[in-house]
Amino acid sequence: MSSTTDPGLKTWIKCGKDTHFPIQNLPYGVFQPKDGGSPRVGVAIGEYVLDLSDLERRGYVSASGKGAASGSDFGADSFMGVLGTGTDQVVFDRPSLNDFMASGPEVWSQTRQAVSALLTGDDPRLKEDREFQAAALYRQEEVELLLPVEVADYTDFYSSKYHAVNVGTIMRGADNALMPNYVHLPIAYHGRAGSIVVSGTPVRRPMGQTKKDEDPAPGFGASRLMDFELEVGCLIGAPSEQGSPVGVPEAPRHIFGMVLVNDWSARDIQKWEYQPLGPFNAKNFATSISPWVVPLEALLPFRCGGPKQDPEPLPYLRSTAPWAVDINLEVWLQGQEMDQPHRICSTNYKHMYWNICQQVAHHTVGGCNLRTGDLLASGTVSGPEPDSYGSMLELAWRGTKPLKLPGGGERKFLEDGDTVILTGWCQGKGYRVGFGECRGTVLPARG
Amino acid sequence: MSSTTDPGLKTWIKCGKDTHFPIQNLPYGVFQPKDGGSPRVGVAIGEYVLDLSDLERRGYVSASGKGAASGSDFGADSFMGVLGTGTDQVVFDRPSLNDFMASGPEVWSQTRQAVSALLTGDDPRLKEDREFQAAALYRQEEVELLLPVEVADYTDFYSSKYHAVNVGTIMRGADNALMPNYVHLPIAYHGRAGSIVVSGTPVRRPMGQTKKDEDPAPGFGASRLMDFELEVGCLIGAPSEQGSPVGVPEAPRHIFGMVLVNDWSARDIQKWEYQPLGPFNAKNFATSISPWVVPLEALLPFRCGGPKQDPEPLPYLRSTAPWAVDINLEVWLQGQEMDQPHRICSTNYKHMYWNICQQVAHHTVGGCNLRTGDLLASGTVSGPEPDSYGSMLELAWRGTKPLKLPGGGERKFLEDGDTVILTGWCQGKGYRVGFGECRGTVLPARG
Repeated sequence: MSSTTDPGLKTWIKCGKDTHFPIQNLPYGVFQPKDGGSPRVGVAIGEYVLDLSDLERRGYVSASGKGAASGSDFGADSFMGVLGTGTDQVVFDRPSLNDFMASGPEVWSQTRQAVSALLTGDDPRLKEDREFQAAALYRQEEVELLLPVEVADYTDFYSSKYHAVNVGTIMRGADNALMPNYVHLPIAYHGRAGSIVVSGTPVRRPMGQTKKDEDPAPGFGASRLMDFELEVGCLIGAPSEQGSPVGVPEAPRHIFGMVLVNDWSARDIQKWEYQPLGPFNAKNFATSISPWVVPLEALLPFRCGGPKQDPEPLPYLRSTAPWAVDINLEVWLQGQEMDQPHRICSTNYKHMYWNICQQVAHHTVGGCNLRTGDLLASGTVSGPEPDSYGSMLELAWRGTKPLKLPGGGERKFLEDGDTVILTGWCQGKGYRVGFGECRGTVLPARG
Repeated sequence: MSSTTDPGLKTWIKCGKDTHFPIQNLPYGVFQPKDGGSPRVGVAIGEYVLDLSDLERRGYVSASGKGAASGSDFGADSFMGVLGTGTDQVVFDRPSLNDFMASGPEVWSQTRQAVSALLTGDDPRLKEDREFQAAALYRQEEVELLLPVEVADYTDFYSSKYHAVNVGTIMRGADNALMPNYVHLPIAYHGRAGSIVVSGTPVRRPMGQTKKDEDPAPGFGASRLMDFELEVGCLIGAPSEQGSPVGVPEAPRHIFGMVLVNDWSARDIQKWEYQPLGPFNAKNFATSISPWVVPLEALLPFRCGGPKQDPEPLPYLRSTAPWAVDINLEVWLQGQEMDQPHRICSTNYKHMYWNICQQVAHHTVGGCNLRTGDLLASGTVSGPEPDSYGSMLELAWRGTKPLKLPGGGERKFLEDGDTVILTGWCQGKGYRVGFGECRGTVLPARG
């Protein structure tokens, strides 16, 4: 049995050369056929979506791993059934991925093996059955993609040191840019899970309190400094117990997969409200995530070393394996006046100072438990170059260096009608393991 | 039909003079009979719990308000069926209050009327039927009380100005005690919903990073400065739409009821981690809530004017009705060496600078939606007197004024084995509408 991430794997389904969804990816999402039917779990393959609820009814995949082949990129001994439920419960005929995510890494791997085998033709049952294909395969334009996960708690880290230095410099000056705690722990705060929306959902510019330095008192109105934040988010599958920390080596057992995240931000609201307890209304009006969840297993070949950590972290945060991930990330902007989107940022997730295993270890070290559906976002992904900054605040340096757009327009922050598109992919030899896109258009404030 | 909060109401069930659960209260909780059976919704009355799932099966209460009498302390026109589901779905034979909470204020009022009538005897069906009583009434010691709510998002406000000034003075000195934004908006941050536990659950002292001012680098170990925070929390019942603010006058429509909250805090972890994004591991290891949810309707007679707000808040935050609530609050501490708990704090919820309607209006003004099960906690309730401070940090003034305990002991912060008991009640003429207690014992750190 070959690995599900083998660069040599081929599928009998027609996939474009530049597709984000080759056989090596197999991301999970929740979709609803446009011609009716309930929301259910699917896998993206090329221009198609494979309906896992149909496979589940046929007994080809299940939460007990039935129908699945053996073997796993994680190594069988590390996950052998520890977290699998071993039952025949329905997990794919569901409006969220949560039940499947809760079934644990052994079931995830077995399901992935089974789906991969059907799509390579190693298991010929789908390839050779036109009726099965007609029932289980949808073209992507035939379906609506829904929020893939019922998000439990949403945590937002701050793990790009470039971003932290940029924001610190803008807010407090170069001498106090980085807080002394930054290089010792992965700074994070809790966000709002209930206002997370799927890509494509328009986002309304928030009203709120703001105060300019020269004003004696705050005013109320539409945010003038609306921004995006380019982030990557980890989704927790297997939960952990309250009071029992998850160490760096065990962290991957709990991570189901990753999504793109746009942590929309209102900088003027944030500036006035954030002392002393952090951002609140500046962020909680909306957060967008991509509809496809790329399994952690599909990302394993793209792990790489991260930035050198100096000083060396405390023992509970030491990473023994390379757990940065080489994900190319881009932000594209299309204003109402523009014919097509224009790329305004090109960066990489591997620049993050703290990796996902360190984030999980820190999050749980005090006893905080993880639940299925928890979203741990990276924080804004900014790299070292000015065009690799993951927010408008940094790209236009708080409005002092407006971004030039094709056609003569420029931006200091987002304007009404602007569409922001995040995209990302890992580059293999001749193929891309991609995230698709996370898109949102700014609606005018409800004045 | 008399009001369910009428001081003259009497129940045929024996209630002690000092009970927290007279006929005027009727708080909701989730319980499981110790001799077996599934978790279900109940109402506390004196020393008893009334099983609403039994009443539901008999058709005496329902999410459509069936079996309920007319009338509401809110006034019928303000809530008339707008949010009620009008269906016969099962909401009480459930392991959480969420389905009932989602059914809306008209159903809440009708249910309360129906339960009140059965317990006063106005509706004689329970009073005159021994078999019904045997099936539906449990003594409190026969049941285990469970977490009453599946908490959606947890927001923690900071609405006692006395507390903010105390903490600011301790942290930054008297000259910079209060941030300039404090009197303009109800400061809040997002907390961790997944680690909320019910009263009685032991809480393990967290491990974490801390750094003393004189140390060159942080160390790792058990928190030395573990604290409680006395708070009152509002539970959201009826949800609101993303992008649609809930104004001050509409806020009560969304509030199902209130609980006691202990927002356990590790002050040394907090001090090192909280800049620039707020508290994280200092708080997310555990938060305790009381098992009984006092309906907002039971609290209406105890509304009163709050502190004068100067400067006048912006228009979206102006409160036209008195929405402070006169709730006596106490904290009791029992160390392992003590025979009985000792009261260390006596304060009142009416001291809060920002009221619950203002909190809801601010939370949603940028477009953030409310979901059924959202918990909006008040922040530490501190009053003007040194014995009315709602945290050990303030009571012992960061360890500089240790609390004296009976038997010669003293406390700067919490020690392993300490049990913290929060309690609270509204004082009526000859009766108390109480919250019961919220209790937790500190376990030693997992070293």
